[in-house]
Amino acid sequence: MAVKSLSIEKQMRSARRAFDDATEEMIKHAESLGIETVFNRQAKYDESFLGIEKSRCYFGASGVCCRQCVMGPCRIWLEDMPMIYRLSAAKLNKGTCGASVDTIVARNLLMMVGRGTAAHASHALHVASTLLKTAQNKTPYKIKEPEKLRSIAAKLDIDAAQGTESAAIEAASTAISDLVHDKSAMKFATSYCPASTGKTLLGLGAIPGSVGSELLAEGHETSMGTMADPVSLILHAARLGVADIASLIISSEFQDVLFGIPAPVQSKIGFRVLDANKVNVVIHGHVPLLSEKLVELSEDEELLKSAKASGASGINIVGCCCTGNEVLMRHGVPLAGSNLQQELVIATGLVEAFVADIQCIYPNVENVAEKFHTKIITTMKEARLPGALHIPFQEEYADEAARRILETAVANFQKRGKNTYLPKGEPKNLIAGFSVETCLGVLSKINPADPLKPLIDNIVSGNIYGAVLLAGCTSSKVTADASHVTIAKALMKQNVLVIATGCAAQACARAGLLTPDASQYAGDRLKGVLGLLGETAGLGKPLPPVWHFGSCVDNGRVVILAGALSEKLGVPVKDLPIAASAAEWMTEKAAAIGTGAVALGLTVHLGVTPPVIGSPAVVSLLTQKSEELFGGKFIVEVDPVKAAQLLLEHIKEKRRKLGLAI
Amino acid sequence: MAVKSLSIEKQMRSARRAFDDATEEMIKHAESLGIETVFNRQAKYDESFLGIEKSRCYFGASGVCCRQCVMGPCRIWLEDMPMIYRLSAAKLNKGTCGASVDTIVARNLLMMVGRGTAAHASHALHVASTLLKTAQNKTPYKIKEPEKLRSIAAKLDIDAAQGTESAAIEAASTAISDLVHDKSAMKFATSYCPASTGKTLLGLGAIPGSVGSELLAEGHETSMGTMADPVSLILHAARLGVADIASLIISSEFQDVLFGIPAPVQSKIGFRVLDANKVNVVIHGHVPLLSEKLVELSEDEELLKSAKASGASGINIVGCCCTGNEVLMRHGVPLAGSNLQQELVIATGLVEAFVADIQCIYPNVENVAEKFHTKIITTMKEARLPGALHIPFQEEYADEAARRILETAVANFQKRGKNTYLPKGEPKNLIAGFSVETCLGVLSKINPADPLKPLIDNIVSGNIYGAVLLAGCTSSKVTADASHVTIAKALMKQNVLVIATGCAAQACARAGLLTPDASQYAGDRLKGVLGLLGETAGLGKPLPPVWHFGSCVDNGRVVILAGALSEKLGVPVKDLPIAASAAEWMTEKAAAIGTGAVALGLTVHLGVTPPVIGSPAVVSLLTQKSEELFGGKFIVEVDPVKAAQLLLEHIKEKRRKLGLAI
Repeated sequence: MAVKSLSIEKQMRSARRAFDDATEEMIKHAESLGIETVFNRQAKYDESFLGIEKSRCYFGASGVCCRQCVMGPCRIWLEDMPMIYRLSAAKLNKGTCGASVDTIVARNLLMMVGRGTAAHASHALHVASTLLKTAQNKTPYKIKEPEKLRSIAAKLDIDAAQGTESAAIEAASTAISDLVHDKSAMKFATSYCPASTGKTLLGLGAIPGSVGSELLAEGHETSMGTMADPVSLILHAARLGVADIASLIISSEFQDVLFGIPAPVQSKIGFRVLDANKVNVVIHGHVPLLSEKLVELSEDEELLKSAKASGASGINIVGCCCTGNEVLMRHGVPLAGSNLQQELVIATGLVEAFVADIQCIYPNVENVAEKFHTKIITTMKEARLPGALHIPFQEEYADEAARRILETAVANFQKRGKNTYLPKGEPKNLIAGFSVETCLGVLSKINPADPLKPLIDNIVSGNIYGAVLLAGCTSSKVTADASHVTIAKALMKQNVLVIATGCAAQACARAGLLTPDASQYAGDRLKGVLGLLGETAGLGKPLPPVWHFGSCVDNGRVVILAGALSEKLGVPVKDLPIAASAAEWMTEKAAAIGTGAVALGLTVHLGVTPPVIGSPAVVSLLTQKSEELFGGKFIVEVDPVKAAQLLLEHIKEKRRKLGLAI
Repeated sequence: MAVKSLSIEKQMRSARRAFDDATEEMIKHAESLGIETVFNRQAKYDESFLGIEKSRCYFGASGVCCRQCVMGPCRIWLEDMPMIYRLSAAKLNKGTCGASVDTIVARNLLMMVGRGTAAHASHALHVASTLLKTAQNKTPYKIKEPEKLRSIAAKLDIDAAQGTESAAIEAASTAISDLVHDKSAMKFATSYCPASTGKTLLGLGAIPGSVGSELLAEGHETSMGTMADPVSLILHAARLGVADIASLIISSEFQDVLFGIPAPVQSKIGFRVLDANKVNVVIHGHVPLLSEKLVELSEDEELLKSAKASGASGINIVGCCCTGNEVLMRHGVPLAGSNLQQELVIATGLVEAFVADIQCIYPNVENVAEKFHTKIITTMKEARLPGALHIPFQEEYADEAARRILETAVANFQKRGKNTYLPKGEPKNLIAGFSVETCLGVLSKINPADPLKPLIDNIVSGNIYGAVLLAGCTSSKVTADASHVTIAKALMKQNVLVIATGCAAQACARAGLLTPDASQYAGDRLKGVLGLLGETAGLGKPLPPVWHFGSCVDNGRVVILAGALSEKLGVPVKDLPIAASAAEWMTEKAAAIGTGAVALGLTVHLGVTPPVIGSPAVVSLLTQKSEELFGGKFIVEVDPVKAAQLLLEHIKEKRRKLGLAI
């Protein structure tokens, strides 16, 4: 299995590096300038020498490499290893301490989930702290959605009648204590979890305490000579996964309170959203605290005046990765690219400032920027680059930081060189801004008394055969975007509603699937539903067949939606005809979300082989036993055509068990 | 440097696997029974095939392997790599994301320090929680040392006049909040740190918040595409290192409150502390909560009666690793072995129950035990073995757990087979039980008004040329024990007082250095001091030249002692003629303690190459720049003879700068 799936990934990317022509064109342009990007480095990691495959380290890719202590590093011998690894490894089925391959693989996975959860919890902590300080009138932000705050308060059993500020302080304090205080159960996990799921988690000891204390225990357990039981390690990963999803929910919910609930919005995606006549500022990362201010301030008269004095016609903010998704769905800010495009965006030569907050920031952006006038600006204390300009963001002084950044960008406009380039055939149109509230809003126009009913009726009838969340990153391990797009098209054709978040949503956008026109790819029954909903929403056109549900943090929204459906139907999440697919997952955060989703009862497809295949016991825990325990499981399938088939079969099976038309 | 130091380690262990004859004999005995131990696995990892070195993975050993995300794993090409690695690697100086070798190496080190700190913080949390519940009368424990509690309260600005229980609740709650609540500064770090050191740490942003929130930030920073600045990563490691030392102090201080302050005690070390006529119970791990109860209950009449009914003459509790050190120094319980001996102890065939709590428990003990009647019993939720009997320890029901364990051991006695074996020439005598209070007690007999003065006078005169802490593990990477013993002997000969903790102390004990007789190896001036102190202490013999200062957690005691000397003299810790050596360090915990010690101004020798040599920038940060920043630094020297020389030179230099006789 190991060698096979790893080599299929390689075959896939050998055909084409990116699914969309513009990215392919930009890769070639960058190469012509001698600029190295993630695509070249990926290719270099694939090289052969004298017929010897210099592929990715087989031990690492299989999860059997242990670097916990300096008796090691240790590598477990696997019988199906390629020759070069057989030559360089000792024939041992244990680490020096005696750790089995199962212990090592499970421990590595737990650490990966731990880092992902820490990343999301840190994001949530920033947002919760900003809400707290905003309610205390210590920041320049406002509580934009007091109504949403009231609904959050209701979930958390907080008395909303005490007034907006007090309720916000209590909700934010609950979140902060969920993240970094000692407690027996995260309130955001227990409050947002459907009762049936909560019961399962409680029975398995998978209700997390605070993220901080879970991470402390994780660090301890994964240290040398401590937890050796793979089942306990995987259960801890599940607990952390649930904590991860609860952290996502904190972020999404509070971001809505502060910045507004997303509503359908038209915008564009592609390198050509950069405007040659304007000061271009790319905002990249994940946490929208500063970027909200950058968007707001890009209309500032004084800054516009100085931009015009520099010869620019204005200031053009464009998004990248999930900070891009955040400002897209709330303000229609166009998207330049996903994580994989970040270096190529700079290689257009048109970027005055590339502003990064946290996560998925390729350190190589610095090296690309050096070839141009582009200023790389880091802003958060957790994510610095050794050579970048650091303009520290603090929520109390967000306006000042945003102004300093835009001033830096404007001042940089005149230094723009002549070596600018934009690819053909862009940008693509898109509709984004779906949210639970948006969906319920449209549905309540059909049935004001019971908004979920039309959705449920359509699912029951088979007009909506099921729903699949396309989530996670885009990856250089496969042809970028191709897996997402292939799966999306195959599913919609079978009347499966596709919801997408993060870079997966952007992949679909680049392929034009976030437009009303793309409903042509949907099966007739789904097409009918999309048409009706589009009319009801007042679009005058069908809804797109892929619903852009936000950033990767907004996977929490989809979990909330699934929970609402589950409670409405009285059917556990695990029995709904739904699934998730992270066809090009790449980060530890994706590992954490996926593990949390499985723990909550979802079936999750992974299209890039996770580093666990060295342990059949762990593979079985994740892909089979997890279903017995939690109701959810992982499906690993690198080929997107086959993956779509497996997802469809899963939905069919769930429909069959529910007695729905199949 | 890399290849050279890695191959020296290998040469060292090729001469002899263990320094002491008994361990060598037991390794051979185990081999004769077909039992594989850490020594065989180490040797297997060293094998060659057709002239190709199958040594440890060079990438991992150099720190240049990155497994953060599934675009990887990535491995950085190093120019001095052995041929086999050149063949199997891509020629790339960056990860797929563009992470530089400096980022990767620093990140790996930070994660290692993070796991070590988590382990110690988890230990501290168990102890603090037990103290809290004991003060609330919810456990079968007692506060044995109210006077010590008062001195801790004074340090923490807690009013001790409120009564023992209330003060204990407040002190324990402070510790718990230091570990798992959100706060800006750990109280146990700021309160126990000499003022001059605290000022340096504050200036560098190296005062830790709570361990939980530091670990949350660490997990976030080390996740893909977040912190890429090696200096920030190393500073975070320093902050975690300080948090680690504060966690050690919490554990040591509260363990003393609960179980008593160690005082000099005579005992023995070696396989032969196992008694063929008794029910042998080995207690292994680190946290003495349950083991205190096991020792207490081993005198229980009912249990003794049933032991005798089984044909045994009694119940014999013996220690292993640092749980062993804890009960040795408080009760004189003899030591069977260090971390490296744990499998061999079972291979004697004489062990009825092998009881593990947390940390340094080789998972292979299960496989060794299978060859005998030995029951492996795990007790803590963080450390389980898939096939072991798990008897859960909870502080509230400690008596019940201890009884169940001893009953299991007694019931197992009659199943002991005939294949028992003990090596010759054992056990060795030792004196243990040194502590800050012990030292001050003896010194106050010389100068009741100013107990530290005699110590300082002797340091000034050069009778005590300096002091070196031998800390950390014993390692199969070198000849076990040999590095510690060689360094200890070389130092004492030059009148340097040697303090030892953890498995390092046990290595010295196996070599007979913890006896009054061993003062013969000390230089004449030190010998004089040891003689005088032995007389003063009422021993009638000299003190040993190596002072056993407790378990590895008790490195905190040594930091407190150094701090007291520093404050008394008005000389910063970094300028004292002292140093530390972790000549055979192995665990992440050692990495955390070492990093914390360097941050507090100590110079720390490492005798096993740390996985950082792939980045000259990180090496320079740890071995040079750290001295400019913190006053402390790492010295890496695999050869113990050279290491002793470097430590002596360091002390000489400090003496010279202080204007003391050199």
